[in-house]
Order: sequence, then C-alpha cells, then structure tokens
Amino acid sequence: MAIRALVFDVFGTLVDWRSGVAREAARLLGPACDAGAFADAWRARYQPSLEPVRAGLRPFVDLDTIHAESLGDVLAQFGMADTPDAVRAELVQAWHRLDAWPEVPDALRRLRKNYLLAPNSNAHVRLIADLARRNGLIFDAILGAGYSRDYKPKPALYRDAVAAFGFAPEETLMVAAHSGDLAAATRHGLSTAHIARPREHGPGGGETAPGVPVTIAARDLADLADRLGC
Amino acid sequence: MAIRALVFDVFGTLVDWRSGVAREAARLLGPACDAGAFADAWRARYQPSLEPVRAGLRPFVDLDTIHAESLGDVLAQFGMADTPDAVRAELVQAWHRLDAWPEVPDALRRLRKNYLLAPNSNAHVRLIADLARRNGLIFDAILGAGYSRDYKPKPALYRDAVAAFGFAPEETLMVAAHSGDLAAATRHGLSTAHIARPREHGPGGGETAPGVPVTIAARDLADLADRLGC
Repeated sequence: MAIRALVFDVFGTLVDWRSGVAREAARLLGPACDAGAFADAWRARYQPSLEPVRAGLRPFVDLDTIHAESLGDVLAQFGMADTPDAVRAELVQAWHRLDAWPEVPDALRRLRKNYLLAPNSNAHVRLIADLARRNGLIFDAILGAGYSRDYKPKPALYRDAVAAFGFAPEETLMVAAHSGDLAAATRHGLSTAHIARPREHGPGGGETAPGVPVTIAARDLADLADRLGC
Repeated sequence: MAIRALVFDVFGTLVDWRSGVAREAARLLGPACDAGAFADAWRARYQPSLEPVRAGLRPFVDLDTIHAESLGDVLAQFGMADTPDAVRAELVQAWHRLDAWPEVPDALRRLRKNYLLAPNSNAHVRLIADLARRNGLIFDAILGAGYSRDYKPKPALYRDAVAAFGFAPEETLMVAAHSGDLAAATRHGLSTAHIARPREHGPGGGETAPGVPVTIAARDLADLADRLGC
C-alpha cells in the first residue's frame, strides 16, 4: 500500500463537536439548558438538514446557514424560542470554536512530514480555517463541501478529493470515525482508515471499531501515524 | 481600512516562475536550448491558452494540462519536437518546482499572524501545495482556479475568494504584481495591494508600480507586511 495523501473527516474525527457545542451552549444559554442534550439535539438535525442539497432540491448553502436554520428548531424544542438573534449568531459560531481531540495536533504534524493532508469535511472553508487556527492544525489544502459544493456522501466529495492532489484513488487515504463515510470512500476506490472515537456522542458513545471493511483500523490519530511509520 | 484576509496571485507575485522554469529547461534540454527564452516563450502562451476555458468553450482543465499542451508548441518553436514524452512530463513539473522570491516566506509568516491567507491563483490545488511545501509557505486555504473551476480575471475567482472566508469584499485584500489582476479585483469590491516585481520577466522587466489605482503599492511582500503593521 503506497499512500500519498490523507483526507480527513473533521467533526467527530479530528474535533470533539459535542463538548465544544455544549460548552458554548452553557455559556450562552445558561444553566436552564441541558447543554449536552442541546448539542445532541442540534447534531441530530444535521444529516437530515443536508438532504435537500444532496438531493439537488436546494442550491449549495454552507454549514453556517444549515446550523442557523436548525438552531431555531432546537431552541423551540428546548423552550427557548425567545433567544435573541445576537445569541443565536454566537451559537452558530460554536461550531467554529471546537477543540481537537487531544492527540490530533501532534499526530497531524507527524503525518504531514510524509503525506499531503487536507480535510474532506462537510464544513466550508472558513469553518475549517477557524478550527485549524484554533487548534494549530496545518493542512495543504481545504477540500470537502466548500470545494465540491455538495455534501458527503455524494460522489463529488470523494472524486474531487482524489483529483485535487492528483494521486491514484488507492493512494488517497480517507480518514474518518464514521463507517458510512468510509464505505462511500471505498466505493470510489480510496483507501480508508477508521479512527475509534468511543466518546464522540458523550454518554451516547461512538464508533469503537469500523462496521465496514477498511484498510486500517486505528485506536486514534497517533496510532494511525504509528502504523504509517511517521 | 480593516483588512481581515489576504488572497494572493502566485506566479510572479510570490514565486519567480522565469528562473525556475529556465533552470528546469536547462537541466532537461541541455545547453542547446536558450533556457530563459524558452521560459519566456512558454509563459507567453499562458494567457491565450486559458481563453477557451474563460469563454466557456472548453470545460475546466488544470494548468498541468494547459502547460503540457502549450509545451508541444514551444518545443517545436525551439526545434526540439523530438523531445521524449518522459522529458516533456518532467518539464511540466517545472511549474511545481519554482522558488519563492527571497522575502516571501518570512513575510507570509508575519502576515499570517494577523490575517487569514490564501492563494487566489490560476494554479490548481496540487500545484500550489507543491510550491507551498517547497518554499515553506503556510496558507489557511487554497482558493483560485481549482476552487472556482475557471481562470482569472473571470468574476468567479474574486467572488469565491471573498465568499470562502466570508468577510466583506473590502476586508479582503487581493495581492498581485499585475495591474490587470488588481483592476479585476477592484471591480468586485476587493481592496488591492500591488507588489513591485521588476525582474519578473528577467531582462524583460516587470511591473515596478501599479498601472491602476490600488489600496496599497508595496516594494515587496516584506514592505506590505510592514505597512500592515505585522
């Protein structure tokens, strides 16, 4: 296996969205809000909210727009429909203020010595740029939804991620904590690495092992760097 | 003036294409080829070769394809039509092996402390990634032709460069050594910085000052960093 480039899922795989969103919800909405449950409820609306774009029923809009729309429903669900617009705007920014899982910054530095690296996420350029700056992550490019104007698991994101670096599909390693993402990558010929994130959903758990065949199954990103000899 | 992001032209502005292409031509074609003239002749075909894409007569193809096509004409012009395919492929890679102008790596490091940075070039992702790695340049994203699937000065490249970071157009500073690029950026509301590159074309010179109104006219990228207080 000759891997030349690594492309990464971000939410859950590189950054801990639940803790970060819960932290910002607690800060902005106060103790009356169950912040963890709020983060879970918001995230639960995420995949369905992308469907109209994936189905071609809606022109591409970025995750800030998607998050702002679904936030209204979540606030209503939590009895906080009177939340002011300024607070809502700050809450949308919570997704720009997530912390990386602890081993990620150092592991990415190691991986970057041997490979070209890019996020291949449903996040747009500015959202990734903010997360990368916050956590000291250096990428060679930002691919994904902003680059492809569509959302995973649509084929464009995997095809474009391969084409952008120009290696063969099997030389491009899709890295994710989600089996569905890796199954889609496999369909387009990419190599795949699963990262266990047993606490992605907090008490709700997370994938501890891949549910589909993958090229590499790693305990975390440092383990992946070890296995790739970085 | 509140600038938040800087987007850069690359060939001529950040990297010295003529010296790099001439160096590779000398290495690969030998002393029978006037390497500087060869670089000039190849570059002269560059703008015309993009026209079919800009005009919508041809689907987007990247600069490796464009350079490979125009190389055939240049080799014929120089009486070297028998150059083997393997050497032609290496020559196309010359554009991935250009050196930055001397002050650029340090100036970009300074600018990145205060601003989001991205190339907004006609080069595609892999070409920029290779130039950035070679010269130790760190960007927050790669915008430009690969991101917009079109070529400057088409409106998409300026609009997309603004939208990708999400600041107001005037908060986005287009940095280039070419007045035409800056005139186009101005038409889309961006702020502009001209960088003098009097040796871009070797003995053929280069722009020593902007030929159009700009926000900032700088002697080089370090001077721009100085003026922006970095």
